[in-house]
Amino acid sequence: MQTPLKIAVVGSGLVGSLLAIYLKRAGHSVHVYDRSPDIRTIQFSGRSINLAMSHRGWRALDDMGLSEEIREMAIPMDKRAIHLVGQPLNYQPYGNEGESIYSISRGLLNRKMVSLAEAEGVEFFFETKVWDVTLADATLHTGETEQGAWDDRGYDMVFGADGAFSRIRHRMQRQNMFNYSQEFLNTGYKELNIPANPDGTHKLDKNSLHIWPRQDFMLIALPNLDGSFTCTLFMPFEGENSFESLKDKDTLKAFFAEYFPSTVDVIPMLVEDFFKNPTSTLVTMKCYPWTYEDKVALIGDASHAIVPFYGHGMNAGFEDITILNQLMGEYGDDWKTIFKEYEKSRKPNADAIAELSYRNFMEMRSKTADAKFLLQKKIEKRFSEKYPEKWLPLYSRVTFSYRPYSEALAIGDRQKAIMDEVMLMHDIDKKWDSAEVDNKILELLDTP
Amino acid sequence: MQTPLKIAVVGSGLVGSLLAIYLKRAGHSVHVYDRSPDIRTIQFSGRSINLAMSHRGWRALDDMGLSEEIREMAIPMDKRAIHLVGQPLNYQPYGNEGESIYSISRGLLNRKMVSLAEAEGVEFFFETKVWDVTLADATLHTGETEQGAWDDRGYDMVFGADGAFSRIRHRMQRQNMFNYSQEFLNTGYKELNIPANPDGTHKLDKNSLHIWPRQDFMLIALPNLDGSFTCTLFMPFEGENSFESLKDKDTLKAFFAEYFPSTVDVIPMLVEDFFKNPTSTLVTMKCYPWTYEDKVALIGDASHAIVPFYGHGMNAGFEDITILNQLMGEYGDDWKTIFKEYEKSRKPNADAIAELSYRNFMEMRSKTADAKFLLQKKIEKRFSEKYPEKWLPLYSRVTFSYRPYSEALAIGDRQKAIMDEVMLMHDIDKKWDSAEVDNKILELLDTP
Repeated sequence: MQTPLKIAVVGSGLVGSLLAIYLKRAGHSVHVYDRSPDIRTIQFSGRSINLAMSHRGWRALDDMGLSEEIREMAIPMDKRAIHLVGQPLNYQPYGNEGESIYSISRGLLNRKMVSLAEAEGVEFFFETKVWDVTLADATLHTGETEQGAWDDRGYDMVFGADGAFSRIRHRMQRQNMFNYSQEFLNTGYKELNIPANPDGTHKLDKNSLHIWPRQDFMLIALPNLDGSFTCTLFMPFEGENSFESLKDKDTLKAFFAEYFPSTVDVIPMLVEDFFKNPTSTLVTMKCYPWTYEDKVALIGDASHAIVPFYGHGMNAGFEDITILNQLMGEYGDDWKTIFKEYEKSRKPNADAIAELSYRNFMEMRSKTADAKFLLQKKIEKRFSEKYPEKWLPLYSRVTFSYRPYSEALAIGDRQKAIMDEVMLMHDIDKKWDSAEVDNKILELLDTP
Repeated sequence: MQTPLKIAVVGSGLVGSLLAIYLKRAGHSVHVYDRSPDIRTIQFSGRSINLAMSHRGWRALDDMGLSEEIREMAIPMDKRAIHLVGQPLNYQPYGNEGESIYSISRGLLNRKMVSLAEAEGVEFFFETKVWDVTLADATLHTGETEQGAWDDRGYDMVFGADGAFSRIRHRMQRQNMFNYSQEFLNTGYKELNIPANPDGTHKLDKNSLHIWPRQDFMLIALPNLDGSFTCTLFMPFEGENSFESLKDKDTLKAFFAEYFPSTVDVIPMLVEDFFKNPTSTLVTMKCYPWTYEDKVALIGDASHAIVPFYGHGMNAGFEDITILNQLMGEYGDDWKTIFKEYEKSRKPNADAIAELSYRNFMEMRSKTADAKFLLQKKIEKRFSEKYPEKWLPLYSRVTFSYRPYSEALAIGDRQKAIMDEVMLMHDIDKKWDSAEVDNKILELLDTP
């Protein structure tokens, strides 16, 4: 057990709320600050992408005994369903039999997490704006406006779980030797909706993550418990087929009729939602260090904001908590060491999942529509089923394992080089399931 | 002639002062703000590296008819002088006969530029802290403290020439879709000094940039008019042979005696200066966009801070002004277009000189001590003298030409690939000046 401290967590999102539960269970007094109102009291923003919870996320909930009640809010998706114009649906399983990622509404999960934290005795301060932090003594500065009078709130320790545009990090950025980058994609996103059938059933297969890949843009849909799907349209801000180009009702309808004909009947509120919901940006943010002495630490998106295409933003943030908690067990009250080891351990993995997420953007929007890519996936799957100890596909290592993301990236690169050679084999589309292909892979695996 | 505007320039450094002169000459009313006192009234900081002014810098002064009086402050350096332990001095010419870079004291030049700007009618506001800017209406917010009461100062246009840690950029960073990165080297630097001889002459060859390359660290010395040299020690912050490791007088003296024996007699104030002068950091900062509508623009280090190893920070900043001025001539009062074209034209070049500067760090601290590298330079020089239309060495293209930095980087990469092949030739050290080598290079140049 650690010596009880007075700890502030800035940000009541998923990572902030779960971290608060962990800290409370470890015996600390925990205050959570958020500039927004209590999410349980407000309507959702219309700019959310459903979560895809996988192994790493579940483990962090499991360790606190929370996964059972969260599973009730989740719908398993064991495959991608690829929608191409004029072709039958194509299903691509994510992993082995029984392996799924889980669709959860971000807003509903966040409400649940706040309630769970409150039940633990965590105290929440909503609509309280943290403008700055004094790093040396973990004092938060709050107030109505940035330029107005501020209150000082002293703590033993502060966690910045306040997301990609973290104020806590903002102060750390002004320290010497603080490395930092933020890079926006030229692609943005918008939330749309497929409502449930009148009988409450889903209009599309509910155990799939649906993708309409169209090269430079794509639509995805993830199921909700109420029979609806939350859809996300990803497309460039400018140029042909961009958010800018879809400026009126008729252009929008014509665009969807041409590129997403299968959605025309299932997205009835297209026009209303498209022009009502905001167009949001996508940013990759990296920084280092993540901690200041034993006083301040960044966690989740505040330390590593990634693009959403691997569905790992929340999973990576929850894994931050898992690792932090392991180090708390290991080093007790030596918070300096805990923080140092935490950032050293997590940074390469955060960088790796950032890279993997960016690459999955390319894969999802274009490669999932490519016959050669699908064949490659089939070869990989076959080989990995036959030689499970020799080949864990990249997606499975990221999603259905607890191996470090950095290892997944490195081994994934090696596997890609091997598959590039395999795909060059003569008549590969005919002999893809032959012993010759197996032997080729085995031989390449043995080549250093 | 442009319609006269009321323009604020934030930052009275080299780029800010010269930009102010350009804007004043173009008919505008110009106010320059700086949080520091007038540099003409204070002692220098002891953390400066001498400038190496080259073609791009001179051109920006020439265009305003200022280069003649600045040349009086400059000492030409036509070569590197490489100091290796136990070996004679090795001289490496920078370019062709008559081509030099020019050593100038940053502080003295800055004083001069401020006086020149003042003589033009530019108004300076020293010790005036700009905390924020409202981008939409180019209003500066100044005040004693960040949290205290602020004054608003409205302008038609604001230039942020306030360096690597620009407050103007700081506001732009908080705009959506603003890409930004800052990355610190693990190497820092410290200013030292070689005083003049009693008769006012230089203790080392005054027309050389002196380098003591020692792999992970290096010392350089640039001449001053008064017979002294400003030295800069670059070394890692931590580890063996680092700023951290040189913690006392005796360790420091032993270190210099071992690695820089030729300096022991010429740096008499080593111990005093080393422990008095600050250890400074080195950062590469990139961002985009650089402008906001026709209201605010970043320039110089505020938009592209680079490491100093190519001596091009000031030269690149001055070239920003040259290009901006050309666009002002071309587009008249259409400042939106001027700003758009300015940032589009300069960004790839700023990225290129950032990359080249980083690479020159590697070259200076280690390769300049390498016999093979010196041979390669000799081959390049010989070939370029024989075929000047076919081969302009990278250093010359960067330093003694006005060709875009981005072109220099691209052609330099191609030249490197060619030289890598040439250096693999059998007995290259014996036949380096043969027709066979010439023909090999000619042939490789013709290979697409």
